Amino acid sequence: MSGALHILGLGPGDPELVSLKAARLLGSAPVFCFFAKRGRTGHARAIATPHLNPAAEELRFDYPFTTDLSVEDPRYLIEMGAFYDRCAETIAAHLDAGRDVALLCEGDPFLYGSAMYPFDRLRHRYRVEVVPGITAMSGCWSQAQAPMVHGDDILTVLPATLDSDSLAARLRTADAAVIMKLGRHLPRLRGILNTLGLTGRALYVERGTMPGGQAVPLAARDDSPAPYFSLLLIPGRQRPR
Amino acid sequence: MSGALHILGLGPGDPELVSLKAARLLGSAPVFCFFAKRGRTGHARAIATPHLNPAAEELRFDYPFTTDLSVEDPRYLIEMGAFYDRCAETIAAHLDAGRDVALLCEGDPFLYGSAMYPFDRLRHRYRVEVVPGITAMSGCWSQAQAPMVHGDDILTVLPATLDSDSLAARLRTADAAVIMKLGRHLPRLRGILNTLGLTGRALYVERGTMPGGQAVPLAARDDSPAPYFSLLLIPGRQRPR
Ligand SMILES: C[S@@+](CC[C@H](N)C(=O)[O-])C[C@H]1O[C@@H](n2cnc3c(N)ncnc32)[C@H](O)[C@@H]1O
Ligand SMILES: C[S@@+](CC[C@H](N)C(=O)[O-])C[C@H]1O[C@@H](n2cnc3c(N)ncnc32)[C@H](O)[C@@H]1O
Repeated sequence: MSGALHILGLGPGDPELVSLKAARLLGSAPVFCFFAKRGRTGHARAIATPHLNPAAEELRFDYPFTTDLSVEDPRYLIEMGAFYDRCAETIAAHLDAGRDVALLCEGDPFLYGSAMYPFDRLRHRYRVEVVPGITAMSGCWSQAQAPMVHGDDILTVLPATLDSDSLAARLRTADAAVIMKLGRHLPRLRGILNTLGLTGRALYVERGTMPGGQAVPLAARDDSPAPYFSLLLIPGRQRPR
Repeated sequence: MSGALHILGLGPGDPELVSLKAARLLGSAPVFCFFAKRGRTGHARAIATPHLNPAAEELRFDYPFTTDLSVEDPRYLIEMGAFYDRCAETIAAHLDAGRDVALLCEGDPFLYGSAMYPFDRLRHRYRVEVVPGITAMSGCWSQAQAPMVHGDDILTVLPATLDSDSLAARLRTADAAVIMKLGRHLPRLRGILNTLGLTGRALYVERGTMPGGQAVPLAARDDSPAPYFSLLLIPGRQRPR
């Protein structure tokens, strides 16, 4: 009988924000795997460390690119597709041999998570269970102590990689907003928020729930490059109550 | 020395989706409290049950209304404000006596959570820690096995309590969308999604991650009233990869 694939959301960074279910499955998985940038530990791998089965076999999937190519670039699509095909086949070989495999994911797997690509390739061939995780945004707004979404507020979650016109159009009509994948886009986002008069409401959160994490008003943050693990929060308009 | 208030996100419903941190704080809290509708167990209370300190003192805050008044109604605002004032003072009395208090929340506390109201009243007077939780939407899209938000998709989270024009305007331009607080609004939402040609992409999820939970295409769901614990998902447009 084939093994099962467990796709595990591991939360924003603090290993204690892993769910009891993900911790249980990590502790018993004979094989685990994760995506990481070349030369980095891998965020999900770091979160999982205290919970892993010490006897487990580890599979590391290094992304083929270290710099960001546009997702519209045909080369990017082709190379990433081939990469995810190879990852899926590596996982499939373990499942065929009857071993369960845990795929580690930062935050929640189905919110901008790479795990969606092996999932699409394997879902009809094997038993797959998806364990949700605490998202980076929840970790960040909790750390910032910023109540975010009230009553009939609409929450808009945007990647900073979008073009400026799209970002401005969405932010203009947003109640509460989260801007993910900030990194090198911070100065451009600040410009857009300044134009919209939103800078005063925005919070910058870096490495939320992780050691050295910080949450500050955007106005108090300089324009030095933001790390990969950062996002912006615009809390909704709390009505008096 | 006063006690600390721990605001605990407990996830979508499965008690095993509680974080290790929330489980630890539940197990040691001398006092815990939660909001509930009159005559109901309380969703957060049910999730917490296996994790509670058996010696803990329990405080139940019954909402003053069982039917939904509009949040725009001045009576609603005044009565709810007075209710949250009383809850905050009940919590404060325990904190003043040096006891830590755990406030139990379904999902994540700062995403449409009532905990935001006592938080606003107590944050400047006491030590308060907010522990994020897995949201209902993450629990539901994991159960539905529906990869939701890809690449540069925008995620829009809307309460079904909004008027139809606002809902239609937002859904028309949405990539991925979640419609919360569905309940009696299901037939109206179906009408809007039909008009926009979105019904074929929509999933209905009821009691996600809970016993008897189900996830089905909206087209396969009849128009009988939806329970309180239900939402609609419109997954983003996955590009080939
Ligand atoms: C590819 S997305 C993955 C999101 C994840 N699946 C989730 O559910 O939150 C990566 C982005 O998440 C955000 N992020 C992840 N962890 C974070 C943290 N601890 N603090 C701040 N931002 C974080 C950053 O914006 C980063 O660029
Ligand atoms: C007041 S909001 C609270 C949201 C919560 N704080 C969160 O983070 O998801 C209540 C709404 O959440 C949704 N909900 C909560 N638990 C759910 C579940 N297990 N399955 C489906 N929907 C759920 C329903 O739409 C419900 O009307």
